[in-house]
Amino acid sequence: MSAGTAADDTRSRLLATALRLFSKHGVGGTSLQMIADELGVTKAAVYYHFKTKDEITEAVAAPALQELLARMDEAERQRTRGAQIDQALSGFVDIIVRYRSLIALFNSDPGIMRAIERSLDGVENFAARMRTLLAGPDPDLATAINVNVMLAGLALAGGAPEQADLDDETLRTHLFDIGRRMLGRPKRRGARAEDKS
Amino acid sequence: MSAGTAADDTRSRLLATALRLFSKHGVGGTSLQMIADELGVTKAAVYYHFKTKDEITEAVAAPALQELLARMDEAERQRTRGAQIDQALSGFVDIIVRYRSLIALFNSDPGIMRAIERSLDGVENFAARMRTLLAGPDPDLATAINVNVMLAGLALAGGAPEQADLDDETLRTHLFDIGRRMLGRPKRRGARAEDKS
Repeated sequence: MSAGTAADDTRSRLLATALRLFSKHGVGGTSLQMIADELGVTKAAVYYHFKTKDEITEAVAAPALQELLARMDEAERQRTRGAQIDQALSGFVDIIVRYRSLIALFNSDPGIMRAIERSLDGVENFAARMRTLLAGPDPDLATAINVNVMLAGLALAGGAPEQADLDDETLRTHLFDIGRRMLGRPKRRGARAEDKS
Repeated sequence: MSAGTAADDTRSRLLATALRLFSKHGVGGTSLQMIADELGVTKAAVYYHFKTKDEITEAVAAPALQELLARMDEAERQRTRGAQIDQALSGFVDIIVRYRSLIALFNSDPGIMRAIERSLDGVENFAARMRTLLAGPDPDLATAINVNVMLAGLALAGGAPEQADLDDETLRTHLFDIGRRMLGRPKRRGARAEDKS
């Protein structure tokens, strides 16, 4: 195994360890030393990859944010409003479900959001773009609040301990259906109770 | 003014100051000394009222929790499921709107929830009772998740900066309508669009 590969391996173990420690102690309660100790490496080895805890925090969150960005790009390319809404919602729900432990950390620790906002100043843009995709460019107040409640509710409940035992597909289906219903989208083919039509 | 009244006045100013400092610096970032300095009193004067920061945190949250408890009692006394749901939802929404800055603090700082959970071990019960009132005693998975998304979304979005400029009555009406729609309750009399009946 080359030195480069070993370093990459250490980097991804480091990020997984950081996420676990952040989840347990909060970002504020986790030090670079604790990450080094948990990994069984020196603090210098951690420094080789990341100079600050904020850099680690950002790297922990980056894959989910990159993916959300890609899904929003895809949604914006759709031709109809309905398809845009469905794509944006399904991207949002997929990422909540797939990155549940990260989302739970976001929800429980404002430190991680602040660290990401400082370094990646696009986070507010992420939220604004997602809201525009779902509510349209100039929503009335009822629509704007509804979309805010939906996004907050899906993210918070998706990462909550009550749902921790559900498998990804079950959670995904339920959250997507709740989102569609809140946005007034028609029932999906294959979903129950289209019997009135 | 009697000494007792002056002490009561200091106590309520102390709690208002604590909430303001907690909102600004987080519970973890606020010390008894900072509260004393902000009030222009000695730390001994703060100690006269509260021995620990947890006691202050609990006292800051107590009025909202007491009120939520009273509203749940009232909801449980209703005879029909529909009336129970409406009472519980309207109590929940009223408290979110009235105690917005406290709710925003709850949302952004897990420290306050942990402090309250330690001292007032009924908090988990609060959430469980509210869920039972809204979803019924033995909900299917879809109903349970829907209620979790709704409670989380209303609380999080209600305390969010995007809604900070709305007056209480406007925010209350919108959140209540979103909740009723999510729970499948019929449109209220006086609300728009009952024109199909």
